[in-house]
Amino acid sequence: MASQFSFSLLAHDSTTAARRSVFCTPHGEVQMPAFMPVGTLGTVKGLTIDMVRATGAQMVLSNTYHLALRPGDEVVRHHGGLHNFMLWDGPILTDSGGFQVFSLASQRKITEQSAMFRSHIDGSLLDLSPEKAIQIQENLGSDVAMVLDHVVELPSPKEVVRDACERSIRWAKRCQEAATRDDQAQFAIVQGGLDPEMRVWCAGELAKLNFPGYAIGGLSVGETPEAMYAVLDAVMPAMPVDKPRYLMGVGRPIDLLEAIRRGVDLFDCVLPTRNGRNAQAFTDQGPIRLRNNKYQLDREPLDPHCPCPACRHSKGYIRHLFIAGEMLGPMLLTAHNITYYQRLMAEARAAIEAGEFETFYQRKKAGWTAAGG
Amino acid sequence: MASQFSFSLLAHDSTTAARRSVFCTPHGEVQMPAFMPVGTLGTVKGLTIDMVRATGAQMVLSNTYHLALRPGDEVVRHHGGLHNFMLWDGPILTDSGGFQVFSLASQRKITEQSAMFRSHIDGSLLDLSPEKAIQIQENLGSDVAMVLDHVVELPSPKEVVRDACERSIRWAKRCQEAATRDDQAQFAIVQGGLDPEMRVWCAGELAKLNFPGYAIGGLSVGETPEAMYAVLDAVMPAMPVDKPRYLMGVGRPIDLLEAIRRGVDLFDCVLPTRNGRNAQAFTDQGPIRLRNNKYQLDREPLDPHCPCPACRHSKGYIRHLFIAGEMLGPMLLTAHNITYYQRLMAEARAAIEAGEFETFYQRKKAGWTAAGG
Ligand SMILES: [Zn+2]
Ligand SMILES: [Zn+2]
Repeated sequence: MASQFSFSLLAHDSTTAARRSVFCTPHGEVQMPAFMPVGTLGTVKGLTIDMVRATGAQMVLSNTYHLALRPGDEVVRHHGGLHNFMLWDGPILTDSGGFQVFSLASQRKITEQSAMFRSHIDGSLLDLSPEKAIQIQENLGSDVAMVLDHVVELPSPKEVVRDACERSIRWAKRCQEAATRDDQAQFAIVQGGLDPEMRVWCAGELAKLNFPGYAIGGLSVGETPEAMYAVLDAVMPAMPVDKPRYLMGVGRPIDLLEAIRRGVDLFDCVLPTRNGRNAQAFTDQGPIRLRNNKYQLDREPLDPHCPCPACRHSKGYIRHLFIAGEMLGPMLLTAHNITYYQRLMAEARAAIEAGEFETFYQRKKAGWTAAGG
Repeated sequence: MASQFSFSLLAHDSTTAARRSVFCTPHGEVQMPAFMPVGTLGTVKGLTIDMVRATGAQMVLSNTYHLALRPGDEVVRHHGGLHNFMLWDGPILTDSGGFQVFSLASQRKITEQSAMFRSHIDGSLLDLSPEKAIQIQENLGSDVAMVLDHVVELPSPKEVVRDACERSIRWAKRCQEAATRDDQAQFAIVQGGLDPEMRVWCAGELAKLNFPGYAIGGLSVGETPEAMYAVLDAVMPAMPVDKPRYLMGVGRPIDLLEAIRRGVDLFDCVLPTRNGRNAQAFTDQGPIRLRNNKYQLDREPLDPHCPCPACRHSKGYIRHLFIAGEMLGPMLLTAHNITYYQRLMAEARAAIEAGEFETFYQRKKAGWTAAGG
């Protein structure tokens, strides 16, 4: 690991695999377990950078694929890198584009050399190799760069999953060799679909490469929560203990707690931002749909203890904003939802420190499920 | 005037009719000349209430017509009135709906009793009388309510303008008689189209009614700036000196200064908010279109002296947000444009106090016109 990065385990929970840790980057510390809001195009949709900071977020994620298309990574570099471009002075993680090639691009063709595909914006032909993915991320100047991986749909035939998994390991090595910046750490990505043995094998192979962090990728692509938890049950014990563990693209509040109790340290997901734009608010009683007519005369906030700008207003006002199509509705609920996720992570960290994570997990789960959430 | 309101003239410019004044309301003072951002539906589009405050705005305008349709004035009253609903603790002015009946509604039919029209939202049949316009505004609980006026298009035949003008005076009296709240002041509206004599006559008739404030209405409806200035030249000397004078729905920065030097104290306009959402920024060098390709690599802010959240970012970043369709673009330029208008008003107030308004006006005008703005 580059000398500007370090990872320290601070506490272990008494009865689960949950861990309390801190990850140090050139742009500051990340207290873990942590959740990164998604700022796909160099902006967390609907929030000023001050509003992002006020949610309690420590680290944000941006998307290599999207930024390479618009405005282009060379343009971001010209603007002094992504931190300077979006004015986020905390840590930034960029994904590699591998997941977007899988989920957004059309006419993709994966060879050993690279992924060829057409842009979802203008149909132009693009070529993303491991070396190119790192070059783009070095131009963006993120603190953490993800290696390029080969994501496949689930379920897929075993030989397809194995082929993609083996290629992802070879690509991880090529990414490592392509690195030129010592202020950027690369995280490797464990693949292997829903096959426990392949996941464990992949984790072991990548562990030999001594990356400064490890992710579990290729999940949250349509499989059931139980299938995802089963993969975590299998793979987490095989992940290096002394490195941050990042579960990519996950998930609902319950998914975060299920993963933390299995030893995951880091998350990102579009759920709080995307659902917020669609009038859905996360609460300890499960999700609330603010468009519902029953909130019209509701003078209470979503959560009187929440410090976010939405919770200074009544539910009735927020409902009015969505019904009237006002931008402030999505802005406020995005702020609330990210704040909710950050408070959940802060509570989880405190519960681990107190050795009471299981009680905390059961209490939260009961609140979410009692209301059908 | 209700005892909770007062208006004091603090200074007169040395060579123009510009005046420096303060208007006191139950929700605080308004230093004049002043500009009100428009919060049509109880929200200034794209800004949290903290962001509105940070622009320097002292008083905001909301629309009776829109709020009566959505969420309904009774709903707003249930939520403790508009101040509590939108969490704006400063003064609020509500228009009467007269202008929206003219500009938005369909199948309108004006009788002596009321304006009948169909909602632009769902086509339902509505009936707005002077008494109803006041009742709605009392439910909204604004500090200043505007009387219901009969707006006509320009140009119109002289008898049409006279008929609407005379009706507006009769309706103003009915509004005055309908008032039941002593924490709400009513402003009358001078009509009379582009006819200087009718404007002067209308101002005189309304002055006899001793309203706590007077507006010039029915302008900025398609006439040239010069025609509007000519109306102001004629009518301003006929407006009561000891009351605030409000030019409704105006306008561009140059229009504000042209009106201030003719004695206007108060303005509102959708221009800074609407143009901000369309990527146009106001500057001392005239308006800038941020979508222009030439700003892609521009690392400078719109205005290094502007304290708004947009001006902490580069023009290149703001351009990227608009090209990518990100909400943050409209949010930031709305904040910038309202801040620009507020700073312009603060500079105008200082220039009047110094007796140097004409020099200030000439300097601003030269900057705006040099760049073709
Ligand atoms: Zn909240
Ligand atoms: Zn600015």
